[in-house]
Amino acid sequence: MWIRTDLAVEMKEDIKGEEPIKGVRVSTKNNGDTDILETRIIVETEEGAANLGKPIGTYITLESDHLREHDDTYHEPMAEVLSKILKSFLGRRKKILVAGLGNREVTPDALGPLVIDNLYITRHLLREGIISHSNEVSAIAPGVMAQTGMESLAILKAVLNEVKPEFVIVIDALAARKSDRLNKTIQLADTGIAPGSGVGNHRNAINEESLGVPVLAIGVPTVISVPTIVNDAMDMMVEMIGKNGFKDVLERFSEEERYKLACEMVDPFMEDMFVTPKDIDEAVKRISYTISEAINKAALA
Amino acid sequence: MWIRTDLAVEMKEDIKGEEPIKGVRVSTKNNGDTDILETRIIVETEEGAANLGKPIGTYITLESDHLREHDDTYHEPMAEVLSKILKSFLGRRKKILVAGLGNREVTPDALGPLVIDNLYITRHLLREGIISHSNEVSAIAPGVMAQTGMESLAILKAVLNEVKPEFVIVIDALAARKSDRLNKTIQLADTGIAPGSGVGNHRNAINEESLGVPVLAIGVPTVISVPTIVNDAMDMMVEMIGKNGFKDVLERFSEEERYKLACEMVDPFMEDMFVTPKDIDEAVKRISYTISEAINKAALA
Amino acid sequence: MWIRTDLAVEMKEDIKGEEPIKGVRVSTKNNGDTDILETRIIVETEEGAANLGKPIGTYITLESDHLREHDDTYHEPMAEVLSKILKSFLGRRKKILVAGLGNREVTPDALGPLVIDNLYITRHLLREGIISHSNEVSAIAPGVMAQTGMESLAILKAVLNEVKPEFVIVIDALAARKSDRLNKTIQLADTGIAPGSGVGNHRNAINEESLGVPVLAIGVPTVISVPTIVNDAMDMMVEMIGKNGFKDVLERFSEEERYKLACEMVDPFMEDMFVTPKDIDEAVKRISYTISEAINKAALA
Amino acid sequence: MWIRTDLAVEMKEDIKGEEPIKGVRVSTKNNGDTDILETRIIVETEEGAANLGKPIGTYITLESDHLREHDDTYHEPMAEVLSKILKSFLGRRKKILVAGLGNREVTPDALGPLVIDNLYITRHLLREGIISHSNEVSAIAPGVMAQTGMESLAILKAVLNEVKPEFVIVIDALAARKSDRLNKTIQLADTGIAPGSGVGNHRNAINEESLGVPVLAIGVPTVISVPTIVNDAMDMMVEMIGKNGFKDVLERFSEEERYKLACEMVDPFMEDMFVTPKDIDEAVKRISYTISEAINKAALA
Repeated sequence: MWIRTDLAVEMKEDIKGEEPIKGVRVSTKNNGDTDILETRIIVETEEGAANLGKPIGTYITLESDHLREHDDTYHEPMAEVLSKILKSFLGRRKKILVAGLGNREVTPDALGPLVIDNLYITRHLLREGIISHSNEVSAIAPGVMAQTGMESLAILKAVLNEVKPEFVIVIDALAARKSDRLNKTIQLADTGIAPGSGVGNHRNAINEESLGVPVLAIGVPTVISVPTIVNDAMDMMVEMIGKNGFKDVLERFSEEERYKLACEMVDPFMEDMFVTPKDIDEAVKRISYTISEAINKAALA
Repeated sequence: MWIRTDLAVEMKEDIKGEEPIKGVRVSTKNNGDTDILETRIIVETEEGAANLGKPIGTYITLESDHLREHDDTYHEPMAEVLSKILKSFLGRRKKILVAGLGNREVTPDALGPLVIDNLYITRHLLREGIISHSNEVSAIAPGVMAQTGMESLAILKAVLNEVKPEFVIVIDALAARKSDRLNKTIQLADTGIAPGSGVGNHRNAINEESLGVPVLAIGVPTVISVPTIVNDAMDMMVEMIGKNGFKDVLERFSEEERYKLACEMVDPFMEDMFVTPKDIDEAVKRISYTISEAINKAALA
Repeated sequence: MWIRTDLAVEMKEDIKGEEPIKGVRVSTKNNGDTDILETRIIVETEEGAANLGKPIGTYITLESDHLREHDDTYHEPMAEVLSKILKSFLGRRKKILVAGLGNREVTPDALGPLVIDNLYITRHLLREGIISHSNEVSAIAPGVMAQTGMESLAILKAVLNEVKPEFVIVIDALAARKSDRLNKTIQLADTGIAPGSGVGNHRNAINEESLGVPVLAIGVPTVISVPTIVNDAMDMMVEMIGKNGFKDVLERFSEEERYKLACEMVDPFMEDMFVTPKDIDEAVKRISYTISEAINKAALA
Repeated sequence: MWIRTDLAVEMKEDIKGEEPIKGVRVSTKNNGDTDILETRIIVETEEGAANLGKPIGTYITLESDHLREHDDTYHEPMAEVLSKILKSFLGRRKKILVAGLGNREVTPDALGPLVIDNLYITRHLLREGIISHSNEVSAIAPGVMAQTGMESLAILKAVLNEVKPEFVIVIDALAARKSDRLNKTIQLADTGIAPGSGVGNHRNAINEESLGVPVLAIGVPTVISVPTIVNDAMDMMVEMIGKNGFKDVLERFSEEERYKLACEMVDPFMEDMFVTPKDIDEAVKRISYTISEAINKAALA
């Protein structure tokens, strides 16, 4: 299957029609007096997984226009909401390993390592008796395969064996379909990271099955792929021509064929390109700080 | 006029047909045993300027696949060739001000400030008598309007009045049409910086007329605009439909109308987005170093 | 006169005795329920200036242990107090130029340029009619002489001539005497920047006399000079010898004991300090590259 | 034992007298027509280890004034010499793991992670069949305990178990005694990293014994410790008082003269040095933000 978005909320939007999707439960709510919209998509059955194109599990999306603002005071409500959801996933587990996936040297892929930079790490403090009565938090930024020669999954497994956590939080930068979701959406998924997803396109699943402990993935879309944009342009053009009478163009290309054509149209080098907002450097720093804050609050309170 | 590339060499390519363009002289040469292709476009008359869409003057493009390589030894030949051309523009002038335009905090726009970081500055050393018998080199990275509240031109003029140079070199990041020119092409233009050009979209011309001394612009394309990509996709689609018999589609939209449509198609937020290669952070650092080296060699030898 | 601290509050401490200094008025207060200690030193006469070693004017020092904390919520009260004092200096003036002095590439000297990065600049928005009814804020980070070949003062004057502000705020990193003041003290001075002060050691005064408009300097100590530390160690040693006699001291301390004493002499916070060359950022980048190259050659040839 | 330098070559200098040290063999050579001085210290016996204060093994120091130059062409000869020595240690081993120790966020401690950034990694390429006939190179930057909650050694062991290398190269930033060795000296040691050494002060040995495969440590001194400087000043003072008598010294030097003496005592290069807290990078960012906020509030309210 070809993937054009890492967001469950966008995959749901792709499914035309208003009627409910079989095997998938969707609910939305506004968080108190904040502007934070929370969408909860629960894939309940294999049929639902096939319909949505996402594995069985829970996907929570938090969206806030303010996340893109420069004023840091707007980040506190988001950190608060995120922290509460994190706590509900954590339950009574006390030993947490946080993994910041991605490449620190590539700005739109640096979200994971930047989150790690701001975490309050306690594992060594607990073991040395400097603090007590705290959850045990450890962290690793494993780097990407081009930097290490190893799969992120392989490094995670090796470290997991060392720290033996009860719960793993994985942070990663995602690709979205719509530009207006970039840097203002946070997705949580108890299904972990799927192969082919993320900005760095992971090859191996990082989830409860592969790691042996519950895995919560936190992701923020920071890029759109170029073929997605071209494909969207072609959609609009086909629609336009369709209105003007060229029905056979519309019929001859399925949606998937059109996407493949878009990929072929952009030259090979283009596939290594990102579409990112101009303020990506600052946006990634800011949102990584919000997530760190939330993890700190959830893990240590 | 709508601009989709800052490179004279790409504007020439846009003009279909093989016959010479009136008022424009074009020559290419390979530099010795290097892989560096040099294209020299001289716009000689107002007619040529109208035909090409670029002011009267000389545009030199240096292209080398190796500029994108990680091995720094490949940069020396380029620095050498660039340095020789710089010297031919400098002539006997001895007081040089180098201006690094762009926003240091936005990676694809940081080329200018990064070049300034590596220059060997002599003005203060000469004035204090620490060195003698050297050209006088001073430099400024004026920042962008969102950072300073001032036009780059205004700051340059103010500084110019202070240092009174005989020659100004302006460095800027450019937009290109073709992705395979990004970070491997260097353009020199004795026409300076035109309004609307550069990644930061300058509003005022920075040239001999506005500054009162000769201005040489050195630019490297680091981004492609999203509408350009969509427009190219539409071109190909229209061509495809054209072959299949929908001639009226082809005729109804002029090239300019189609570009405007592409701009409308990408949502407003998209206009603040860049298409950049994944390795932009490192690519910009590397090429800025090559240009600094060339300026150091040309100014101080 | 030799300068070992840029802080008026430390120069006052150097003056032994509890009696008031002639021509100098000192008052302290705590700001409400915050931990922020405010010391106000007013040099009223030339005699006071000679006694304290600082020009006539007002020096306000804000100190807070929390400024060194990683939790950003502690920064709000300080920003609030600082903002109120700034307003009282600004009065009814509406056109403000902020100058961020120092070298962005040298971390302890980067304070000024970093402040500029986060300012909300309005001058261009007002002039374009995008906003109205706001003060006019413009900003410049002039760089240091080694980067530009020009004095900061010269660039400031040139820019001042362009924007014609009614008030100038100058930001600079300072040197302190006591390590426990680093990064937790903010000094405001309506006397501007004196020659020889700051991390970068300015050569020309930047003040109302040289700029023609009121100048408020905001500084934060980020470094201690090495001679200051050595000098303090010598003071303590002289005192110790004075009490115990030279031979006694000489004999009682083996080389190892003397090293331990040295460790005790530097205060606890000092142990977390580095002595590094000014160009450490660039030096580390460069030498890391050499080592990588060597490993690449050795491993792959 | 108290450690004031990580360099074997400086520990040898500390031992007064010209006669050979028992159990330690020392030889020096110049590398061809370069300026690179190579000192080879071989600790042959336990007696030698006790005498020098370093474990049995080989310590090679490469020194070059040019390493501190900004011109990258000077780096090639050093990379060449270093590469040859590396090869002689590697022998016929083909599977190499490179570990970049230290904290990327603290400039003087960032050497290890920065080296990793520029390596050519082959392990994944070999396993995917993209290349063949190459040594297998993998790499890890494990971070420091404050970032991960784990010992570097623990992470290294876990990763080692995954990639099963035949040889480990460990990169680390070191502390030196003499300021004029900073950033121009490279030390290789087949004894690995000792507890208490390095800028980050490792607690566990990283060597052949702890890892089970040969370990070569490559280190560059980037800092001097503050107690070392104070101790050196005290040494000189004791010597001076010994020659001239205490009263004489006490009376002859006013406070100002003593400060000047302190300046003379620190060597000329030292004047270009800073004493900064370890967290200076983050501290400056944070406090600059507070000041920006205050200016924004004051200027725009």
